[in-house]
Amino acid sequence: MVIAVIGDSSCSPKEVKLSETVGELLAQRGAILICGGLGGVMEAVCRGAKSKGGLTVGILPGQDSSMANPWVDVPVVTGIGEARNVAVVKSAQAVIAIGGSYGTLSEIAYALKSNIPVIGLNTWSLSRIGQEDDPIIRVKSAAEAVDKAISLARSPKNHEIASLRSQ
Amino acid sequence: MVIAVIGDSSCSPKEVKLSETVGELLAQRGAILICGGLGGVMEAVCRGAKSKGGLTVGILPGQDSSMANPWVDVPVVTGIGEARNVAVVKSAQAVIAIGGSYGTLSEIAYALKSNIPVIGLNTWSLSRIGQEDDPIIRVKSAAEAVDKAISLARSPKNHEIASLRSQ
Amino acid sequence: MVIAVIGDSSCSPKEVKLSETVGELLAQRGAILICGGLGGVMEAVCRGAKSKGGLTVGILPGQDSSMANPWVDVPVVTGIGEARNVAVVKSAQAVIAIGGSYGTLSEIAYALKSNIPVIGLNTWSLSRIGQEDDPIIRVKSAAEAVDKAISLARSPKNHEIASLRSQ
Amino acid sequence: MVIAVIGDSSCSPKEVKLSETVGELLAQRGAILICGGLGGVMEAVCRGAKSKGGLTVGILPGQDSSMANPWVDVPVVTGIGEARNVAVVKSAQAVIAIGGSYGTLSEIAYALKSNIPVIGLNTWSLSRIGQEDDPIIRVKSAAEAVDKAISLARSPKNHEIASLRSQ
Repeated sequence: MVIAVIGDSSCSPKEVKLSETVGELLAQRGAILICGGLGGVMEAVCRGAKSKGGLTVGILPGQDSSMANPWVDVPVVTGIGEARNVAVVKSAQAVIAIGGSYGTLSEIAYALKSNIPVIGLNTWSLSRIGQEDDPIIRVKSAAEAVDKAISLARSPKNHEIASLRSQ
Repeated sequence: MVIAVIGDSSCSPKEVKLSETVGELLAQRGAILICGGLGGVMEAVCRGAKSKGGLTVGILPGQDSSMANPWVDVPVVTGIGEARNVAVVKSAQAVIAIGGSYGTLSEIAYALKSNIPVIGLNTWSLSRIGQEDDPIIRVKSAAEAVDKAISLARSPKNHEIASLRSQ
Repeated sequence: MVIAVIGDSSCSPKEVKLSETVGELLAQRGAILICGGLGGVMEAVCRGAKSKGGLTVGILPGQDSSMANPWVDVPVVTGIGEARNVAVVKSAQAVIAIGGSYGTLSEIAYALKSNIPVIGLNTWSLSRIGQEDDPIIRVKSAAEAVDKAISLARSPKNHEIASLRSQ
Repeated sequence: MVIAVIGDSSCSPKEVKLSETVGELLAQRGAILICGGLGGVMEAVCRGAKSKGGLTVGILPGQDSSMANPWVDVPVVTGIGEARNVAVVKSAQAVIAIGGSYGTLSEIAYALKSNIPVIGLNTWSLSRIGQEDDPIIRVKSAAEAVDKAISLARSPKNHEIASLRSQ
C-alpha cells in the first residue's frame, strides 16, 4: 500500500508535529510513504516514517537529488518541475493533505480527478457553484487521517490497485 | 499577448455561449488564445476566436492531435496527459477560468503558484484557513473577463513578458 | 501542416545558414514551424521562417518565456525541462534534424518511436546490432530536407493527421 | 546508490537471462534498482533483484499501476507517458542499457546529456559527424556491467549524489 502525504515546503511548528506523527503512524501500519521529497511537511512526514522504520519515496521536481530531504530513501528525480505533482498523487491509493499552499491545491485537484480519496488536515476548502458536497474528507487528528487513508486505500473501490501493491 | 482560457470539456449551453464570446473578444483585442485544445469550453472559445480571425493554440494531453477541436490552429501534442495543465497556464500572461471541474482547479492552482492572474467566471471558490482574500478575480461577464485579463497581462508587474510577446 | 526542426542551441555558422534556409523554405511552403524555442539552430530556423512570413512555435523547457528567441511567435512555456522534447516532435508530422547533440538525439528517438519521419542534415548516425537499415532519411541540402519533410508529412501514411491540420 | 537498468519491453531470451543476472548482482551489491516498471528487460531485472532481496522502483508511463510488472516494490505512476524516460535516468547515478529500441535510445540520450554514465550491453551504437569517441561504455557481461556501474556511481565526479543516497 502506498499513501501520499502532501503539504507545503514551509509550514508551522504545529504542522511539523502533525506531519511527523502521520509519518510514524503510516510506517507502523506498513504503508510506503510517497511525497514531494522537499522540506516542511514533506521533510517532517519522512522523518516520522523513518523513525519507525518505514520506506519513504520523494518525487522531486528538480534536475538532481540535491534538494531531497535527508529522510528520503528513494529520491525520484523527475526533472519536470511542478508537473511532478501529478506523479505524487497518482502513485498513491489515498492522499493525506496537511495545510498547504497552491502546489498542494494542484495535487488535491489531480487526486480528486483520478478518484483517489483525499483526507484533509486543516487544508484547503473548495466549492463549486451548484455543488454542495465537500470532496475532501475532513479529519481532526493524525491518527484519524491515517486510519481513514488506510481504510479507503483498502476499500473494494480501490481493490485492484491494493491487491497489486500488496504482492 | 497570450491569454489562456480554461474550463471543462463538458459544459452547459450557457458556458458555451460565454466561452464563445470570450473567444471573439480576445481575437478582436489581438490576443493569442491558448487552451487545452479539447471540447466544451475549450472548443467554444476557439470557435469564437476563429470567427473573429484570432490565432488559437491547443495544448493537448494525448499522443496525437486526433482529439483537438476543429478550431485549433496550432495543436501542441504533449503526450504528458494531465501534466500538460502546467503548460497551458504558464504560457499565458493571464488566465480566464469558465466554470470547470478538477482539471480546471489544478490549472487555477498552477497559475496562482506562478503569480499569473486568474479571472473567474462562475468558477471554483477556494479558501484556506487563516487566509481571507479570494485569490481569484471574480467577474460577471465575458466583456469584463477579457478587459481584466488584457489589462492585467499588460500591467507593469507582467511587463517583461508582455514586451517580449508583443515583438 | 506542422514541421519540427531540431538541433542544438550552440551550432556552427554553417548550421546557422542551413537552418535559416530551412526556415525560409518551410514558410514559403506554408508549413507551421515548431521547435524548442531557444538559440542556435532553433533561433536560426525561426528567423528564416519569419523573414518569409511564416508562423513559429517554440516549446520552451523553462518556467517562463524569457529564454525564447525573438523570432518565436507562440512561446509555449512547459515548465517540464527536457521532457518537453517529446512535445516538440509529437506535435509535428515530420521532423528535420540539423546537426545536434544529446537533446536532439532524444528527440530523434522519440520521433522514430512515434513513427514520425526524421530527415537528417549532418546529424547523428544510429545503429543497433542485428539491424541494417538507417532509420533516418539522409539529405544533403536545405531544399531537399524541406521537400522530403513536406512530402512525407502529406503521404497517405500520415494522412489523417495532415487532413486535420490543414482545416 | 541508485542504478537504472533500461531496455525494451519485448526482448530475446538471452536478454532476459542477462537482465535477470544484472538484477541479482545489483541487489547483492546493495544498489536500489530503478527502471521503467514494465515487461521484458524491466521485468527480468526486477525479478532478478527481488530474488536476492533487492529494492525495485518502477517509473511507469501510464495512469495507474496496472501495467507494473509483479516484481516492482515501488510503482511510481507518472501519467506522463514516454516523458517519464527522463525520470528513469535522472534518478540514477549510473545507467545500464541492455539491448533496447527507440525508448531506450531516448533514455541513453537523456543520461548522456545529464552526464550520467551509460554502460552498454549489446545496445545502440551512436556516432556524430566530427566526433570520434563512443559515449557509451561497452561491456560484455552482466558482472562487468554491474562492476562498472557501481564504480562509476561511486566515483568522485558523482560523489555528492552518492553520499546523499547512501545515508
